[in-house]
Amino acid sequence: MTNTKRAGICAPLGYTAAGIHSGISPHKDKKDLALVLSEVRAKTVALYTTNLVQGNHISVCKDHLKDGFSQALLINSANANACVKDGVSLAYETCLLASEVLGIAKEDVLPLSTGVIGHPLALEPFSSGLPRLALELSDKGNQDAANAILTTDTYIKEAQARVEIDGVDVHIGGMAKGSGMINPNMATTLCMLTTDALIDDEIMYELLKDAADKSINCVSVDGDTSTNDTLVLMANGLAGNPVIKKDSPGYEMFKEALEACLIELAKMLAKDGEGATKLLQCHVQGCESDKKAQKLAQSVINSSLVKAASFGEDANWGRILCALGYSNTYFDLEKLDIRYLSKFGELKVFIAGSNVAFDEEYASKVLSSDEVTIEVDLHEGRAEAWAYGCDLSYEYVRINGDYRS
Amino acid sequence: MTNTKRAGICAPLGYTAAGIHSGISPHKDKKDLALVLSEVRAKTVALYTTNLVQGNHISVCKDHLKDGFSQALLINSANANACVKDGVSLAYETCLLASEVLGIAKEDVLPLSTGVIGHPLALEPFSSGLPRLALELSDKGNQDAANAILTTDTYIKEAQARVEIDGVDVHIGGMAKGSGMINPNMATTLCMLTTDALIDDEIMYELLKDAADKSINCVSVDGDTSTNDTLVLMANGLAGNPVIKKDSPGYEMFKEALEACLIELAKMLAKDGEGATKLLQCHVQGCESDKKAQKLAQSVINSSLVKAASFGEDANWGRILCALGYSNTYFDLEKLDIRYLSKFGELKVFIAGSNVAFDEEYASKVLSSDEVTIEVDLHEGRAEAWAYGCDLSYEYVRINGDYRS
Repeated sequence: MTNTKRAGICAPLGYTAAGIHSGISPHKDKKDLALVLSEVRAKTVALYTTNLVQGNHISVCKDHLKDGFSQALLINSANANACVKDGVSLAYETCLLASEVLGIAKEDVLPLSTGVIGHPLALEPFSSGLPRLALELSDKGNQDAANAILTTDTYIKEAQARVEIDGVDVHIGGMAKGSGMINPNMATTLCMLTTDALIDDEIMYELLKDAADKSINCVSVDGDTSTNDTLVLMANGLAGNPVIKKDSPGYEMFKEALEACLIELAKMLAKDGEGATKLLQCHVQGCESDKKAQKLAQSVINSSLVKAASFGEDANWGRILCALGYSNTYFDLEKLDIRYLSKFGELKVFIAGSNVAFDEEYASKVLSSDEVTIEVDLHEGRAEAWAYGCDLSYEYVRINGDYRS
Repeated sequence: MTNTKRAGICAPLGYTAAGIHSGISPHKDKKDLALVLSEVRAKTVALYTTNLVQGNHISVCKDHLKDGFSQALLINSANANACVKDGVSLAYETCLLASEVLGIAKEDVLPLSTGVIGHPLALEPFSSGLPRLALELSDKGNQDAANAILTTDTYIKEAQARVEIDGVDVHIGGMAKGSGMINPNMATTLCMLTTDALIDDEIMYELLKDAADKSINCVSVDGDTSTNDTLVLMANGLAGNPVIKKDSPGYEMFKEALEACLIELAKMLAKDGEGATKLLQCHVQGCESDKKAQKLAQSVINSSLVKAASFGEDANWGRILCALGYSNTYFDLEKLDIRYLSKFGELKVFIAGSNVAFDEEYASKVLSSDEVTIEVDLHEGRAEAWAYGCDLSYEYVRINGDYRS
């Protein structure tokens, strides 16, 4: 059996997926219901939004993951099932419907929702849609599923990786949706990962959390933390590898591959941020600790002023300096370097605490790329961090000025 | 002597002011240098930005306020004197020039700067401008001064108050500039207050800090904390009132008047935020503590999504709920009410944890006002707080997309 054609959430062995229009969305050509099924029950861990106000699917996911296993993900877009009465029991009912159609335990179904807050979610699209959805399940269904979970996203987001552990091929696959990352109404970042690896129970949560901290948790489009954000990792063990433990030889390789998949998805989320015209990354290096580097990088990426200047392709480094300054960390300004990097070249603007004269025309060229990195070097240590975001455009204001209509 | 014509920074006895174009700004019709002079040395306290990267005037202000007195404020716009070499010595030199022209001690001059970061500030406009500026000092000079400190602001910001303490009239006056509050490049909120009250040394700093926490510190236009933010209060004691102490009868009245002045200036700053089309206020009440109420109110006002929805006059209450949810506080969603208030009426959208049906046309009308308040009631206590901000418009993106050109 060859896996060359398997991709996205279906890249690992034993996973099928599908996506259809079920009627949750009023737009008939918008797929709005996705299903991901593992041949066998899969060890599963998840991370959830830190917002106090949480979508109703979250408590159901937590309940169904008490035993650490799941077999199917049932994801709808166009309705967040949040801040509505009876939303939790509705979510349980959708799991029951799916379990009946798929012939699996209802506790092994995880529901996930994204879309408008405050509108009741109807059961009908699930009861009429699930039989059709189950029939369409296929190991080529990854793109349909990746489509069905989108909201304002302008493209699907998939990633996959393969590593060899003790001579055995192990696969990781994933899909995600943004796109006003962390946009309460549209709402929500959802991200699902599958793997056929056999992983030790003890390390699975930590693996996911660490990878999320270097990827999804470094993305900010508008600084608004959604009510529904959920990241799920299923591991069905069908690859047949020796179990991955903390001290086993495959551990580092698997960890890196998982991180790489999530970073790829994170960048896609950032670049497809609402109204975004470019991916804006900040890389802070030469720092005394990872945590501090992370704080500094995120402060830069979250600044509305840095974002707006990036949209205008204006090398306004004073705003970067300012955002570093209000990040609640200490650094020595006299040692600080700031540079812009893109496929069009490198632009030094601030070296060792002083501004550097530069050619405005060249600066505009460097900043005109659709992927721009702000490089900050503190020259005080060896720690580093990345943050991923996007520019702030007229389109963001338009989308969010009148979203509901 | 009647004070009916005295206003703004010149409202209290013994203060004169002036504002001229000195050549710091390239635009000849833009006043760029202001002076405020007290007849006698005045007790003075100040609050500064918390940004690690600070404008050069700040260390000079701190040095000159070691003895707790000042007599003149020298304020320039069009250049922040920040992140440039020799900016501190330049600021000292401007104080020396002013002291020579005014015949006062150089340590009694406080320099304040606002404008572009990273461009060296020249001494020449000060040496040529100060003699002219001194000649123009007048107790009607408040508007010229208020004009000269502006950057992207679209109008001057002045406030004044009068209270009677033990039969003696005491005055407070103030002026401020925004307008991308807390906009690192344009840069900065500057706010100056004068009073003729005699105030006990012990309580003056606390009075200013408390009033700032209920006003200027509750304003957010874009969440970016500037490098130059400074708030100064001068008290020359010329009113002849019995000294205001913590237990004296006039204390509460004076405190309230000071707060009222600063709240008025804070609202003007918020409403004139870069690109703003309206003042957006959030009032959180029924809370168990002031601090928690403040956190909740600021979380709402800082949300890009709430701000963009406000620009679109869209009653998108899910975004308010979401912003409350990620404020790192706990509250009982089942008790929560959310209402919009404006001069066009009241719109209930969420009562006791449930959404309320409303007429969209009426909602648009309420939200079309140039001053909109989001009322949040937690029904858990008696504490409350306000936060002041503005909507997020296309114009904000335009202004900040290409500020330097």
